[in-house]
Amino acid sequence: MEHGTSLITLGVADLARARAFYERLGWRGQEVEETVFFQADGLGLVLWDQDKLAGDAGSNPVRSEGFRGMNLAHNVRSRSEVDATIATAEDAGATVTRTPGDTFYGGYAAHFTDPDGHAWEIAYNPGLPVDADGGLTLPDFGSM
Amino acid sequence: MEHGTSLITLGVADLARARAFYERLGWRGQEVEETVFFQADGLGLVLWDQDKLAGDAGSNPVRSEGFRGMNLAHNVRSRSEVDATIATAEDAGATVTRTPGDTFYGGYAAHFTDPDGHAWEIAYNPGLPVDADGGLTLPDFGSM
Repeated sequence: MEHGTSLITLGVADLARARAFYERLGWRGQEVEETVFFQADGLGLVLWDQDKLAGDAGSNPVRSEGFRGMNLAHNVRSRSEVDATIATAEDAGATVTRTPGDTFYGGYAAHFTDPDGHAWEIAYNPGLPVDADGGLTLPDFGSM
Repeated sequence: MEHGTSLITLGVADLARARAFYERLGWRGQEVEETVFFQADGLGLVLWDQDKLAGDAGSNPVRSEGFRGMNLAHNVRSRSEVDATIATAEDAGATVTRTPGDTFYGGYAAHFTDPDGHAWEIAYNPGLPVDADGGLTLPDFGSM
């Protein structure tokens, strides 16, 4: 798995609706062969029809209800950015599943699901600094 | 959502088993407060107990069966790297849901699920070059 690049593809029921949602959050999509690509802060995010995505993966396209076993976290630079991002997401049609508040690790976070039910966390984590270029650099936790 | 960093957290039933699986694939994890962090190729991947993850997100921890509506894709540099990665994953306990083969976009890919059912695609896509540093740079698709 070394020496590669990574993308996350979210299955969506309505590509135009999903694209509009993420563009409201400040990302710019590019449409490519029935998908929409977003590149932001080291994350390559792709939106694609959920049935096509399931078929492509060789999976039974069973709809999951409730929590899907993973979330996407977006770390921002301050508590006020958490509040502002959650407000924007809610205006854009997100369901806020946990309102902004302190976290067990000394940060501040809130959670929402997008119009297709994909779970996001927006977090300020003073122990996980955001690079000037938005890149992710994990500190050396010293526990290897 | 600009100016941040992004992480993906996968809910797992057995943290040690999940860590061992991803380390077999060539990534090195760091244990931090009951989670395991991996940083590879611009992707920040976190493993965490699935019930704690669901509770943290304010979600009902319903187990989803079948396809969960998203997948994680890892792009490699050649067809032979796809074959090798899938063989390694299968040896490490993955379920191969689609064996390596040509894709509609002119590439070559295969799919597996990890021991907790999270869906991955391993792909060679000649239209999406892998940077020397493993970074993701989407081409200008010219359709903005």
